[in-house]
Amino acid sequence: MAIHPLEEILHPRAIAVVGASDSGGRGSGFLEPLIELGYKGHLYPVNPKYKEVMGIKAYASVKDIPGAVDYVISSVPASQVLGMITDCAEKGVKAVHLYTARFSETGRKDAADLEIEILNQAKKAGIRLIGPNCMGLYYPGERIAFSEGMPLESGPVGLASQSGSAIHEIVDLAVQKGLYFSKAISYGNAIDFNESDYLEYFAQDPNTKVILMYIEGVRDGRRFYDTLRRTTASKPVIIVKGGRGQSGTRATASHTASLAGSMEIWETMVRQAGAVSVRHLTELIDVAAAFHLLPPITGRKVGVAGGAGGSSVLAADLCEEAGLDVIPLPAEIREELKSQGSEIWDWIDNPADMSIRIDRSWAVGDMLKIMAANPNFDLLITFIRGHFHGDREKVSAETFLEQYRLDELGNKPLLAVIEEHRLRGNDDDEQAWIQELLEEVKAGLIAAGVPFYPSIERAAEAGSKLVDYYQRRESR
Amino acid sequence: MAIHPLEEILHPRAIAVVGASDSGGRGSGFLEPLIELGYKGHLYPVNPKYKEVMGIKAYASVKDIPGAVDYVISSVPASQVLGMITDCAEKGVKAVHLYTARFSETGRKDAADLEIEILNQAKKAGIRLIGPNCMGLYYPGERIAFSEGMPLESGPVGLASQSGSAIHEIVDLAVQKGLYFSKAISYGNAIDFNESDYLEYFAQDPNTKVILMYIEGVRDGRRFYDTLRRTTASKPVIIVKGGRGQSGTRATASHTASLAGSMEIWETMVRQAGAVSVRHLTELIDVAAAFHLLPPITGRKVGVAGGAGGSSVLAADLCEEAGLDVIPLPAEIREELKSQGSEIWDWIDNPADMSIRIDRSWAVGDMLKIMAANPNFDLLITFIRGHFHGDREKVSAETFLEQYRLDELGNKPLLAVIEEHRLRGNDDDEQAWIQELLEEVKAGLIAAGVPFYPSIERAAEAGSKLVDYYQRRESR
Repeated sequence: MAIHPLEEILHPRAIAVVGASDSGGRGSGFLEPLIELGYKGHLYPVNPKYKEVMGIKAYASVKDIPGAVDYVISSVPASQVLGMITDCAEKGVKAVHLYTARFSETGRKDAADLEIEILNQAKKAGIRLIGPNCMGLYYPGERIAFSEGMPLESGPVGLASQSGSAIHEIVDLAVQKGLYFSKAISYGNAIDFNESDYLEYFAQDPNTKVILMYIEGVRDGRRFYDTLRRTTASKPVIIVKGGRGQSGTRATASHTASLAGSMEIWETMVRQAGAVSVRHLTELIDVAAAFHLLPPITGRKVGVAGGAGGSSVLAADLCEEAGLDVIPLPAEIREELKSQGSEIWDWIDNPADMSIRIDRSWAVGDMLKIMAANPNFDLLITFIRGHFHGDREKVSAETFLEQYRLDELGNKPLLAVIEEHRLRGNDDDEQAWIQELLEEVKAGLIAAGVPFYPSIERAAEAGSKLVDYYQRRESR
Repeated sequence: MAIHPLEEILHPRAIAVVGASDSGGRGSGFLEPLIELGYKGHLYPVNPKYKEVMGIKAYASVKDIPGAVDYVISSVPASQVLGMITDCAEKGVKAVHLYTARFSETGRKDAADLEIEILNQAKKAGIRLIGPNCMGLYYPGERIAFSEGMPLESGPVGLASQSGSAIHEIVDLAVQKGLYFSKAISYGNAIDFNESDYLEYFAQDPNTKVILMYIEGVRDGRRFYDTLRRTTASKPVIIVKGGRGQSGTRATASHTASLAGSMEIWETMVRQAGAVSVRHLTELIDVAAAFHLLPPITGRKVGVAGGAGGSSVLAADLCEEAGLDVIPLPAEIREELKSQGSEIWDWIDNPADMSIRIDRSWAVGDMLKIMAANPNFDLLITFIRGHFHGDREKVSAETFLEQYRLDELGNKPLLAVIEEHRLRGNDDDEQAWIQELLEEVKAGLIAAGVPFYPSIERAAEAGSKLVDYYQRRESR
């Protein structure tokens, strides 16, 4: 297989940041995270106004840099881009990431014309473009980031997003679920590399297992469909479409100059291509966490345990409405409960309402264990609700999680619901302690391969989308 | 107007807790919160096994209590209820709350028959019943609660719920949005007072402005529709129906012995009666907070400000999908921006994407102020996103909120979106500080009459449900 054109430019030995300054705005904004993450290649600030920027020697032009430069980040104004590309061409630069904006997305003809001229000039010079109007590359493995505070950890998630601010949000959400990225690329107006190139890249990237996309408009619909369909045969692709309605379409035009198109056609296309469609970034990460931690699931029969009263009833409703099948408790489980001497063997059902237990000696973990051993269930959902309150000496994340018997559930996929509003301390001090313990509980769940959600509907919807994908993949 | 039968029994001068014990279970569970909240009437534990319970003199039977008793809480087993009712009849008790369960909800004929016998006996004795199989009354004004930690504060929300655990969840969620209750009543199997009685009661209760209901099954559909339609003419009623699907129906049967019925008929009925239907408890409180803080809104034209990039685009989509109308930025606002010298007067739109500001001297609050003054907008939504990071000495909830200019928005309804995952500290210490500040920010928003939500879709959906109600009320 030929090396992907993006693969060739994503391992730069030297990066020049054109328009770098100590101003504190975006001029320094690209240099700072590279320094912070410890980018190992050569780093060259370029700005004719300064001798040095952030303590690093600066150059007046890309041409003046003594060593080779393969990757340039441009934060100069739009009017200076053509000149900069000329310099890059002379220098033998392979790729330019244009943070520079105010092109076609402004809706102004002169700005759109300039964008085309830049593309033509870059093509002639053999320079590939990321953007314009985008944040570019986050690649923790190469220690490349575009904002401070982006995690140094790598992970199996690949992300291509037209919006850079969406990447910030997605990364923030992901980190809280223990999800990290192979690469994330913000690609803005996509005048050269477009959605299909980035998707194709992640499809062949061995470090990427789950692909996420935020797309406002597609440059080449036919190619995208084909690429998507090919990719989903081996990797899940989860897509948020921005600009679905009338007003959103207006907003995409001024954001990344995209034409949004009809949502019905889009949804049909995504479905037929075997990808997963979600409505917003929170759902994107909900579903990504399920794909990250759970094995392939191709059945919809769910067992629910750990709720009580009304919340058990609503859990059943919400699971069903998400497309899962809340089957009655299998007869052999009733028999097992009966043989264990349970008083409620003929009364307890699925969802297992823990408030009707008479004998408190068995807990939610016992029910989970019984459900996990039963082949009728394809997946399980449990509420994480035990009491954090009480004697702090005796409670740890470990003892807390023991009641769920996670190591006795075999390979049965489990999703957890942690309703944090139910786990509040009586004062600030206790609250801080619970918060800390909760972080450890979450880490414990991740380590046990259990994705967690703040509500039953979000758990059920994530689980159901996962099944959607594997069912469609299986039926191809 | 006649005094409502419930009004007559909700101000007891003396409460007897039958089956009270020091055991730590529910036997003491009803006594403890009454002591904790400082119930002002006489409190009598009843249990032949003890001389005193929780430091209070206990009696062998209700009959043995020296003073008058108007309200009895029963936590004795089902088999002892008939005898207890006989004692209550002799004592002249007006109402019995039957926490006692294991009646028709078990699905056993003998248990269901006993339930009917109890009702008949109580009727003969002129005793009214709350329940059975329920947690009963939470009435902070009378210092009556059924669990420890229930807030002492009263508020304008009335809640009738078949499920007691749902009340715990609803109260937990509500407190975090500054919502408090006039009364909350868990009514379980509803053999005597039913859904219509509780609704009717809240309809006439001057301390209740917003009515919430969690219903699994309706005892008398015709009466409920009529009562609901009458009530919604003056007060919003927001209803969660538990047991909507096949499995949920199964769950309601074993939870409160309710027959769920068809969801299509239910939804039509709720709509025609002018009430608001929601899917789960979180949405219930989302909508309740909107009704609590916002004035009546009968138009759907929303202005959105404070997002950036992709999140602005998705904000437009999610508002539209929730049923709001994200109108283009009115021409007169463009003119105003132009006259102020804005460089993006012809580019910025609604949602106002704050990432395209060139001149950073104007902030989201300026945009909100301009939108608030414009009659084209019926309501506004803003993202609360300012930077908490930086110099702690300089940042307070007050200075933080100043950027939103809440006191310059006139009467324009505003909903806020606080995405807490975007407001994370760099370490535990900073995180704790941000958390504390956030609590103050939320309190500031509540004081300013601004309900807040963790996501744009939840804000938009709550706002839209509010408009639904007032539009239907207006068109009657």
